Amino acid sequence: MNDALPSSDQGAAGPLIPVLAVVGVGLIGGSFAAALRQAGQVGRVLGVGRNAASLARAVELGLIDEAVSAEDAAKRADIVLLSTPVGGLKNVLSRMLPHLGAATVVTDAGSTKAEVVDAAREALGDQVGRFVPGHPIAGAERTGPEAADAALYRGRTVILTPLPQNSAESIDLVRRAWQACGASVINMDADAHDRVLASVSHLPHLLSAVYMEQVATAADARTRLDLAGSGFRDFTRIAAGSPEMWRDIFLSNRDAMLAELADVRAVLDRAERAIADGDDAALLALLDSAAQARRNWQKE
Amino acid sequence: MNDALPSSDQGAAGPLIPVLAVVGVGLIGGSFAAALRQAGQVGRVLGVGRNAASLARAVELGLIDEAVSAEDAAKRADIVLLSTPVGGLKNVLSRMLPHLGAATVVTDAGSTKAEVVDAAREALGDQVGRFVPGHPIAGAERTGPEAADAALYRGRTVILTPLPQNSAESIDLVRRAWQACGASVINMDADAHDRVLASVSHLPHLLSAVYMEQVATAADARTRLDLAGSGFRDFTRIAAGSPEMWRDIFLSNRDAMLAELADVRAVLDRAERAIADGDDAALLALLDSAAQARRNWQKE
Repeated sequence: MNDALPSSDQGAAGPLIPVLAVVGVGLIGGSFAAALRQAGQVGRVLGVGRNAASLARAVELGLIDEAVSAEDAAKRADIVLLSTPVGGLKNVLSRMLPHLGAATVVTDAGSTKAEVVDAAREALGDQVGRFVPGHPIAGAERTGPEAADAALYRGRTVILTPLPQNSAESIDLVRRAWQACGASVINMDADAHDRVLASVSHLPHLLSAVYMEQVATAADARTRLDLAGSGFRDFTRIAAGSPEMWRDIFLSNRDAMLAELADVRAVLDRAERAIADGDDAALLALLDSAAQARRNWQKE
Repeated sequence: MNDALPSSDQGAAGPLIPVLAVVGVGLIGGSFAAALRQAGQVGRVLGVGRNAASLARAVELGLIDEAVSAEDAAKRADIVLLSTPVGGLKNVLSRMLPHLGAATVVTDAGSTKAEVVDAAREALGDQVGRFVPGHPIAGAERTGPEAADAALYRGRTVILTPLPQNSAESIDLVRRAWQACGASVINMDADAHDRVLASVSHLPHLLSAVYMEQVATAADARTRLDLAGSGFRDFTRIAAGSPEMWRDIFLSNRDAMLAELADVRAVLDRAERAIADGDDAALLALLDSAAQARRNWQKE
């Protein structure tokens, strides 16, 4: 997977993004800046955030050139990446709106999209076309500017969920920026995105956490945890993830989560009935289908 | 963890087990034989099985010295390890009963114990004290004699669920055999064993398979699987396990599975309600408790 820009976009024509602004210079935003800098596709990088020490560290690390206000970022940047929790998005967009430069394009990196689109519509009104919603499918356990990594997006997928109001140019600019980071970019409808992510990302976290909680609160939890082995280890690894981040994601993606959970419960009911009834043919059929599907999944 | 036998048990006194018989010379039984041989604690090894080619291969590999009938094994062996599917256990014990040597001790390696104990009582009647139920917590994806590994049990735990009818000597002999393989041995009640294993081993497999089946049968399964990442990978890894083996385990451990599943459902209901109600405090408390428990689990 090599979607780097053709070299004709570089050199005499200057970088793709003369001025980049990143709101929230942590793993996601910092890595975006670092990757674009490494690709030679960014001029100056502005950082916005509430934590002055963290911004100072981002300057030291060379992730950003200077710390500025959200208003300044809106005025000066060609692209603004919002890599802050989804909950704060509406407020920062409202602050930026009166200051948006003539060609400034705003994008984000939020894990859910329908709620983000609603917030953007409310904050930006008839200027909502300036906002191109996005979601890089990448992440890691680490957080903060120290975790930033120019290679984070290499070979990864970024999903854009463009709005009817977006200009072709603004969508293209965001797409080319992510491609310059080494990612492949695909477009989806925001609701389809949320349903798919609820399924393959959010629900495993919920089920893993629910299961871990049940084991850990059993009367004989100590014995259980002493005897747990490698299957348990893999199955519960994601339950250790940030509780605050996952709470925000689950609540932000509520409708899709509930719909997917209902579908999983239907299969669980089927499996439970087969066990209770001693229906070995039904149980084997279900386990066999699942095992085949997992073995055919070529991502190991 | 080093529970190897003290050297005083070796040497002049001869090996711990002059004649060992293994019924089912695959990963579990073959590794037991190989580990005891490596430890110098076994004299002659007899192999019993229905597949002549597999037994011939076990001889070639040096796992067993000769292939014999179940009746012969019962007559000649000091310890007989039954490492066959739980379903065939009653039959093989019935065949062995009339031929059991004066001091022959029979043990097993089944993943569930209450059903095994019932089968042993039915097959052996007033001789049930000759059977010491056991379960080595170890395993691997591979099967067959080629998969046997003298190191498989090193540092692992073996659970014995002794019967009131077992003599102290027979329990001790089985315990020392597993310790000679490098394992730690603990005793538990059979029902407690089944409940704990349902919790930390069987239920993760069921939930992982159920989840995998739901994803793989969704209308947009292709898109989902294309976008699934490392969390999905870890959470579903165990769903690829042998459908036949897991079906047998689930049905053999039905009551404990259903009881544990009911407890997991209670936590799932709580999580779902918190998401549906937008109750972020309740959701955060649950996720935080689960994350802490997982982070405190020191088995990585």
